Amino acid sequence: MFSIDTIHAARERIAALAHRTPVLRSRTLDAQTGATLFFKAEHLQRSGSFKFRGAANAVLSLTDEQARRGVVTHSSGNHAAALALAARIRGIPAHIVIPEGTSRAKVEAVRRYGARIIPCPPTMAGREAAAERVRAETGAELIHPYNDFRVMAGQGTAALELLEDVPDLDTIVVPISGGGLAAGVATAAWALRPAIRIIGVEPAGAADALRSLQAGTIVREPEAATVCEGLRAFLGPLTFPVLRKHLDGIVTVADSETLASMRLIWSVLKQVIEPSAAAAPAAVIGKRIPLSQTSRVGIVLTGGNLDFDTMPQPGDPA
Amino acid sequence: MFSIDTIHAARERIAALAHRTPVLRSRTLDAQTGATLFFKAEHLQRSGSFKFRGAANAVLSLTDEQARRGVVTHSSGNHAAALALAARIRGIPAHIVIPEGTSRAKVEAVRRYGARIIPCPPTMAGREAAAERVRAETGAELIHPYNDFRVMAGQGTAALELLEDVPDLDTIVVPISGGGLAAGVATAAWALRPAIRIIGVEPAGAADALRSLQAGTIVREPEAATVCEGLRAFLGPLTFPVLRKHLDGIVTVADSETLASMRLIWSVLKQVIEPSAAAAPAAVIGKRIPLSQTSRVGIVLTGGNLDFDTMPQPGDPA
Repeated sequence: MFSIDTIHAARERIAALAHRTPVLRSRTLDAQTGATLFFKAEHLQRSGSFKFRGAANAVLSLTDEQARRGVVTHSSGNHAAALALAARIRGIPAHIVIPEGTSRAKVEAVRRYGARIIPCPPTMAGREAAAERVRAETGAELIHPYNDFRVMAGQGTAALELLEDVPDLDTIVVPISGGGLAAGVATAAWALRPAIRIIGVEPAGAADALRSLQAGTIVREPEAATVCEGLRAFLGPLTFPVLRKHLDGIVTVADSETLASMRLIWSVLKQVIEPSAAAAPAAVIGKRIPLSQTSRVGIVLTGGNLDFDTMPQPGDPA
Repeated sequence: MFSIDTIHAARERIAALAHRTPVLRSRTLDAQTGATLFFKAEHLQRSGSFKFRGAANAVLSLTDEQARRGVVTHSSGNHAAALALAARIRGIPAHIVIPEGTSRAKVEAVRRYGARIIPCPPTMAGREAAAERVRAETGAELIHPYNDFRVMAGQGTAALELLEDVPDLDTIVVPISGGGLAAGVATAAWALRPAIRIIGVEPAGAADALRSLQAGTIVREPEAATVCEGLRAFLGPLTFPVLRKHLDGIVTVADSETLASMRLIWSVLKQVIEPSAAAAPAAVIGKRIPLSQTSRVGIVLTGGNLDFDTMPQPGDPA
């Protein structure tokens, strides 16, 4: 079963490896939103995103026998780098199936952590087939990016820390992709503070979780259309029921709002967050979530991995 | 006289207003440079740069009688915003002379803090004439961006904090423009830890401080040619002798190195720093400063004010 106890156990397991990330504040954003905001800075987590929590918990949960055979996953993003780093720390093989077309910087991040990279066609079927082939060949343990209790529990540790630092939050806002973070955070927060509101945020162009909750079953559409690379996945059979039980609502934000909020956070907080990490703040900044002047709102800044080398830069000579 | 006592007094004066900024670390950059680096995060200071320290100290040093008449300065950059904020906090008028052609975002930052903005021709003569006119009309106190002991003392408080947090630094690296920060930091660090090395960094295209130290007198050339807007000033008669006495060397960096280091810091530290703030790290990352494996190096990240709205962004739809 998946519960607060699973999450407490994950926290003990990863304590020596994961950063306890800081909680950031901003007078300017408080004034702009009329509430009191607490940003859980997971872009400062190891590997640059909260994904390290779940990956580390999964890797450290393996028996020595399992660990020797290594781990495998398919991911083009933050889970890939996080799993590669967690495996390197334990000193075991990591096989990462990466869709063709993934940016060089993301592939390099995984390679830098010493993982073996297996290219695959850029489709979910292609990814799953390649990962299954690696699993069959190596006996490596599949660590799914979200549909895995070990991963969900790891992600939930962010909420334990946040509520320790700010016990009287009345709302926590998290982005939803496959639902691993949202499920972990909602489970932890609901257990510690039953009256708290947990609000999920999706890009308007990838609002499958909203539809799923409305339909009462996992809906695998629309095909994601969003610049938020990290928010394109569908819910899984393990995350969906948790969200159905503990989530108080889902709001959607347009990519334009998300990108404007990303720039605002860069500019005001001086923190580099990636587009996917700006969706949750966008919902608050854009007043999509009803808040009062006494509201104390936790917002998870999920990651800060951007490919700066291939993009025009502030400061570039024109 | 300008001494560590002046800086201690400044610290007491500004303690309630200025942030005690954190010192940031990076395993990646330590590994890359072969030393142990400590980044003093002045981009997280109020108004987005270390300039708030000097401005606040100057504003709080005024008698009530002086304060009533307000303050005036000429600046297109971080000193303007810092002085506007410091004046607003004390509740006194600020008159900021801003050269025509200054970016809208920088002007808006000053306006947001409630200052009166006086446009002027974009030349040093035009700036000084406009500021003098305002001073004559209003009786406001001129707060020079760097050639002012109150300002230099305020900037030096960054070194007091850094050496409290990391007492055993052997090197501190600071950028040099007009020399206010470098003079304050060098004075404080030399008094607290006489054996410490203080290294200044200039853009290769604005290496007037290097030439000045070589010539033994203030050299006002070359005309600055650098993307680092904050590093274009010449030394002043108050900063030059302090640097001559306490600085252990100046190294220069190419803009290309500075911009590459800016991106690296964005990417690795997830911190938004402006180009001018990347010159000092560039000197360390580019191995322009001899370091050993036991070196413990303090680097001041001076500011994080960039105009994101008018530039192409990571995450922009193509």
